[in-house]
Amino acid sequence: MTTSHRPPLRLAAIGIDHGHVFDHVRGLTAAGAEFVGYCPDSTVPGLVEQLARAYPDARPQPRQALLDDPQIDIISICAVPSQRAGLAMQAMRAGKDTIVDKPGVTTFEQLEAVQRTVRETGRIYSVCFSERLCVPSAVHAGERVAAGEIGRVIQTIGLGPHRKGRARPDWFWRMEDVGGILVDIASHQIDQFLHYTGAATAEVQASAVGNFGTPEHPRFEDYGEVLLHAPQGRGYVRVDWFTPDGLPTWGDGRLTILGTEGYIELRKYIDIAGRSGGNHLFISNRDGTRHIPCEGLPLPYFAALARDVHERTETAMSQRHVFEVCRLSLQAQQQARRLGALEAAA
Amino acid sequence: MTTSHRPPLRLAAIGIDHGHVFDHVRGLTAAGAEFVGYCPDSTVPGLVEQLARAYPDARPQPRQALLDDPQIDIISICAVPSQRAGLAMQAMRAGKDTIVDKPGVTTFEQLEAVQRTVRETGRIYSVCFSERLCVPSAVHAGERVAAGEIGRVIQTIGLGPHRKGRARPDWFWRMEDVGGILVDIASHQIDQFLHYTGAATAEVQASAVGNFGTPEHPRFEDYGEVLLHAPQGRGYVRVDWFTPDGLPTWGDGRLTILGTEGYIELRKYIDIAGRSGGNHLFISNRDGTRHIPCEGLPLPYFAALARDVHERTETAMSQRHVFEVCRLSLQAQQQARRLGALEAAA
Repeated sequence: MTTSHRPPLRLAAIGIDHGHVFDHVRGLTAAGAEFVGYCPDSTVPGLVEQLARAYPDARPQPRQALLDDPQIDIISICAVPSQRAGLAMQAMRAGKDTIVDKPGVTTFEQLEAVQRTVRETGRIYSVCFSERLCVPSAVHAGERVAAGEIGRVIQTIGLGPHRKGRARPDWFWRMEDVGGILVDIASHQIDQFLHYTGAATAEVQASAVGNFGTPEHPRFEDYGEVLLHAPQGRGYVRVDWFTPDGLPTWGDGRLTILGTEGYIELRKYIDIAGRSGGNHLFISNRDGTRHIPCEGLPLPYFAALARDVHERTETAMSQRHVFEVCRLSLQAQQQARRLGALEAAA
Repeated sequence: MTTSHRPPLRLAAIGIDHGHVFDHVRGLTAAGAEFVGYCPDSTVPGLVEQLARAYPDARPQPRQALLDDPQIDIISICAVPSQRAGLAMQAMRAGKDTIVDKPGVTTFEQLEAVQRTVRETGRIYSVCFSERLCVPSAVHAGERVAAGEIGRVIQTIGLGPHRKGRARPDWFWRMEDVGGILVDIASHQIDQFLHYTGAATAEVQASAVGNFGTPEHPRFEDYGEVLLHAPQGRGYVRVDWFTPDGLPTWGDGRLTILGTEGYIELRKYIDIAGRSGGNHLFISNRDGTRHIPCEGLPLPYFAALARDVHERTETAMSQRHVFEVCRLSLQAQQQARRLGALEAAA
């Protein structure tokens, strides 16, 4: 996606505390960027080594050296969630655009500070909502919705189960570090609600967080829900950390988009006990009911972001959308009813 | 299921305004009952004729003659929803037990009157929540939940899309006759929430009804939602009349039961663009992820109800459960936020 008359985008990574860094690097290099360097500080054993093996040409460097390097255009930030906003602001103040793992912020104060920094620096603060932007079936669903194949969208239901896993860094269990389950993983689903309904904003009608199955970490939120309202339609979100051991992938992520003339169901990562692979799109409308395999379809976000960096546009995702997803996630988290062990502890 | 020392149960039907009468007659006759008569009054063209052809030994009779017949044990009532409670009370006052199509009541006043009648007569008022009781995969899910295969149930998500169809009686469009979409079809889902979580009661945390796609009947509710809360867990319900023309059955009814150690998904009536037939149960837990076909598995409700009639027990479904589903449906309907054309009209 680079054109002959401009140099490739130069990318560096700081705050390597989540494997999503691979999404950013893979996506942007596929769009023509060069991954030139990274700060090797990390809380996750083995992650930096894995990155170094995958990208031997990228040089480990101190964070400040990367921020000071005028050759670097864009910084990927996948730090501990509570530190992402601070790093992104440093990067923007140093003149860099940013691609940030979700959640981009964990408090309203951070959101306000990031918004001010974007205003003052004119830099890009893009949060990569990977459960849409890195999922070909989710991208393709947007195209079919835009083509009017299911009429007007009136509701989305997003289910985001995740596997707790056995080797998590300490911060994973500390809600002040991740911002809470709704900020952390429901932000994906809120992004999708706004995207598919076309709503610019929404209201959190109800939300809840719970601890139903993690007594060893009594403040951990292993369950969350959000009920969203917009004039365009309704959104229901359930996220959790209850993926069973016997599921052959990390989570049975689903999205159902209900329109006035049809609906779409995504089985994003697995078609349980069914077809192989992920990215299964099902559509039912007046013309019939079909399965559309989407594995390998393009992910236009990264090329669009690379172009935005060069051309100072915002085609990959509007800045307003990013901030609205952040705001709604924080709002849902703040007003959440506390369930299970959290209710007892409240 | 009848035993040799007692005569078969004798069944009659009054208020034949919904095809669910076939569920009642088929289920109870399969459990050994005799279908002896019916009152031929109906608002639905062809329905009584269809019943007469299917059961040529049953005699058409005036309603009062059936109620006065001491040989008749149980009365099936599938009248216009707003008339069901009145007919059921007449039947109970005449000494009959009743099996009533959902919704059993359409107002709080009806609910109170029915409760009083049950108390005073000692008769059975059973509402046949067919989307569980007549669906083998839903029955089987209950057995697997009871066996502990997914741990403790913490949430259910019930989706009940229905096809509006083109030949509906006038009362179908009048919300005062059906009680509203939540009373009418979300009652199925509320029944399931209580059943699978084991909750005796619940709280309606949020609910909504909307008209998003039926401008020709501006007061018709084609969309509904309920968010339920119980100490045992949470329940989300979406019902609608948006089944697309291209879906090969009346609705893609789904149920997801999330437990602390696994989950179950039901594709009750269709596995879209997939396996043939209905009643597909999927289970994922520590042992793996499997598809279990449930077509043809038994529906124990009817034999249990027949036994209850003989033995004056309440094994098919507790009377308290029936009334709690009715109460929650009415509550959800009463407090529902109004969406789409209904919001504009409010």
